Amino acid sequence: MPDQRISAQPDPTVDPALRSWVEVPLDSGFPIQNLPYGVFRRPGEMSRPGVAIGDQVVDLAGVAGLGLLDDDLDARELLVHPSLDALLAAGRPTWTALRRALSRLLRADTADLRDHPRRGELLIPQSEVQMLLPFVVSDHADFYGSIEHATTMGRLYRPGDHDPLLPQFRHLPIGGHRRARGVVVSDTPIARPSGLRRAADGAAPVYGACEQLDFEVELAFVTGGANPPGQPIPIESAGEHIFGFVVLNDWSARDIQRYEAMPFGPFASKFMATVSPWVVTTEALGPWRVPGPSQDPPVAEYLRCREPWNLHVTLETRLQTRARRERGLPPAVVASTTTERLYWSAAQALAHLTVTGGPMAPGGVYGLGTVSGWQPEEKGCLVERTLNGAEPLTLDDGEQRTFLRDGDEVSIHGWADGPGYRLSFGAARGAIAAAHDPQRGRQHALSRTR
Amino acid sequence: MPDQRISAQPDPTVDPALRSWVEVPLDSGFPIQNLPYGVFRRPGEMSRPGVAIGDQVVDLAGVAGLGLLDDDLDARELLVHPSLDALLAAGRPTWTALRRALSRLLRADTADLRDHPRRGELLIPQSEVQMLLPFVVSDHADFYGSIEHATTMGRLYRPGDHDPLLPQFRHLPIGGHRRARGVVVSDTPIARPSGLRRAADGAAPVYGACEQLDFEVELAFVTGGANPPGQPIPIESAGEHIFGFVVLNDWSARDIQRYEAMPFGPFASKFMATVSPWVVTTEALGPWRVPGPSQDPPVAEYLRCREPWNLHVTLETRLQTRARRERGLPPAVVASTTTERLYWSAAQALAHLTVTGGPMAPGGVYGLGTVSGWQPEEKGCLVERTLNGAEPLTLDDGEQRTFLRDGDEVSIHGWADGPGYRLSFGAARGAIAAAHDPQRGRQHALSRTR
Repeated sequence: MPDQRISAQPDPTVDPALRSWVEVPLDSGFPIQNLPYGVFRRPGEMSRPGVAIGDQVVDLAGVAGLGLLDDDLDARELLVHPSLDALLAAGRPTWTALRRALSRLLRADTADLRDHPRRGELLIPQSEVQMLLPFVVSDHADFYGSIEHATTMGRLYRPGDHDPLLPQFRHLPIGGHRRARGVVVSDTPIARPSGLRRAADGAAPVYGACEQLDFEVELAFVTGGANPPGQPIPIESAGEHIFGFVVLNDWSARDIQRYEAMPFGPFASKFMATVSPWVVTTEALGPWRVPGPSQDPPVAEYLRCREPWNLHVTLETRLQTRARRERGLPPAVVASTTTERLYWSAAQALAHLTVTGGPMAPGGVYGLGTVSGWQPEEKGCLVERTLNGAEPLTLDDGEQRTFLRDGDEVSIHGWADGPGYRLSFGAARGAIAAAHDPQRGRQHALSRTR
Repeated sequence: MPDQRISAQPDPTVDPALRSWVEVPLDSGFPIQNLPYGVFRRPGEMSRPGVAIGDQVVDLAGVAGLGLLDDDLDARELLVHPSLDALLAAGRPTWTALRRALSRLLRADTADLRDHPRRGELLIPQSEVQMLLPFVVSDHADFYGSIEHATTMGRLYRPGDHDPLLPQFRHLPIGGHRRARGVVVSDTPIARPSGLRRAADGAAPVYGACEQLDFEVELAFVTGGANPPGQPIPIESAGEHIFGFVVLNDWSARDIQRYEAMPFGPFASKFMATVSPWVVTTEALGPWRVPGPSQDPPVAEYLRCREPWNLHVTLETRLQTRARRERGLPPAVVASTTTERLYWSAAQALAHLTVTGGPMAPGGVYGLGTVSGWQPEEKGCLVERTLNGAEPLTLDDGEQRTFLRDGDEVSIHGWADGPGYRLSFGAARGAIAAAHDPQRGRQHALSRTR
């Protein structure tokens, strides 16, 4: 897609000819053109920011502490921290300057770190670190940007409606706030939630473990900077606030959702969202920015975007089951989809988020909505794929799924392929654990409070 | 209501006989039995935590710094901070110990601060300080706890429905997440929001300044401590997490809300919520805890509460208009209601918030929903009071309102009257400023980005 890119100035950090002195296998997904940010911890040490390159992570607190980045930015102030919070607060000019400084530092012809006596401490194999949620999530919302997803969900959830697509779908990016602290990093266990769902006989609802646990395949944007109360962020300024993107799995308890959702929307049913540990920057994704689908009817002025903000990113969802694991089978691919057809872009979502003047802080995580196509293998959630359980999905070993079972592990992998290199998000992965036993939990609480 | 209180141990901090060496006028609302927490700033100084007593605020960072509180708690670690974040994180045993230490310090017979040479610096007139939002709001949700409000809203917004009350209303506390950073402290200006609303002819929506700007009168609880991902907080443990309560105005752009709300609920229309600067502690409200209305049909086990968690608090809403101000008239009382009839209590809301295992961090602000009664003067929002504008509200000077106008100032005052003293929340106050001019905002942004 690089030919569709519109940019006033070529960005030297995404030059396909760039090479690093760090060895980067061709299919690594973390070439010098990527440099995604994350937060890692070595056993027994404090957490610290890093960037991925090849199969290594560069210790940014260490690099900044040695003064290897101090061009015009105060790298210690930004990076000698247990998280990316200070970096997210710093804003676009700092983000651009830091990325350029890192790109320079890791370039094949730059000796500062390459030949530094402490290089061995500052470049750590990714296999030796634990990745953490890289910043405090100040706000979390989810949009509903895929026309294919919204149409199928309308058919399933509002079967009486003449048009399965809600009339406002093409006029504004429909969104809903979610639990900010429900955002967790890849590999956090996902306990099957319990809650109330409709009873078969239509009487009082039933309490119990969710029977329709689902995933939702999403791309989400991460924001930095802030807007003062009452001041919308105009769509032209989206790039000043969109720091980067993560892959997100918006876990959904469908039976609980269906019972609770009127009139305030999904609430307890959206209990956690798993994100990839690496935040791929807006700059790194520059070559994959494409115009979105044409919008007809025309949207309001505040949603009109002169820059391309859709992204051509592939999202592949893999399911590992207990049976497959026991038989030594690899995970089965259960969905494969791309994000460039999303009806609403990140810039439009951000403009809409702030159109009424609601304030934003650094560290917002905003999902663009379940990414689905019209084909069965493009469906970004099980409720769509199986038509709410009516048509089970059959894996290649003959196993079937309507919704997720305990022991299932879902991993969503995101990447973008370009000329000469692949850009990876890593994966948003989570395994389903058995439901918490509320009776045992209550007895525990009672024994503590009495 | 003190006779309805159920408590194993009498709490010495709410003894009606307690007196302070600080002079407290009878109607102050801040007697020694209250001691609400807030964060204040003197001109040119850093912000710091305080408690209100009489018309003074006690500088808690200063008091802790002098070692006047060090009983069994490390008061410096808790209080020498620009906010209440550390205190909220500390949890119930610390909250109880700190409150007892403060109560002791301010008691008439305790000399430590009363006779301290630096007392004059540590006790500051409230009129000389600016109050700030006292903690980082980690999460914000709004419930829908008043049967009277939900019924009227059902009649107005779903006129075709046979039963205006949704079938799940009596089975679970309906709630929705809101923008955490939209919570602002009293006296923050409220700019009239702009957004999309339905066009009169049913065609494409119209963008413009909100024409149906409304308030919602609420009591909200503030949480501390945390639950790990996947672990519900049982209702018996609610008291370990509910730090206290604030008065909250959930500003609502009704026309924008009506257009956007399907299927994810209100989103951009709920752009800010104003809270009172003082957090009244759960302990201080002990004498006003009352059983809620009997719940029929019976609720699920996880929502069954053995302790009384409803509160007998009066909420009075006053409207000051430009015309009244110019004529020297005081604000008009436009709503007066009490919270003890709310169908769902704070403990039930908290148990429901976490039933699916979604994690919570310290600093949650959870509104219990618009507090309305059946009488016109008990309606906690204008859309109810005026039947969506059909029957304007006439003030005592003859002015009329359907919804709020620029220059209107809404203040919600909360208090509880007991034997010999009144407990005040102070007020959640906000004045409506003219809508932001989006055209000017965009031009400003364009000039910066080009």
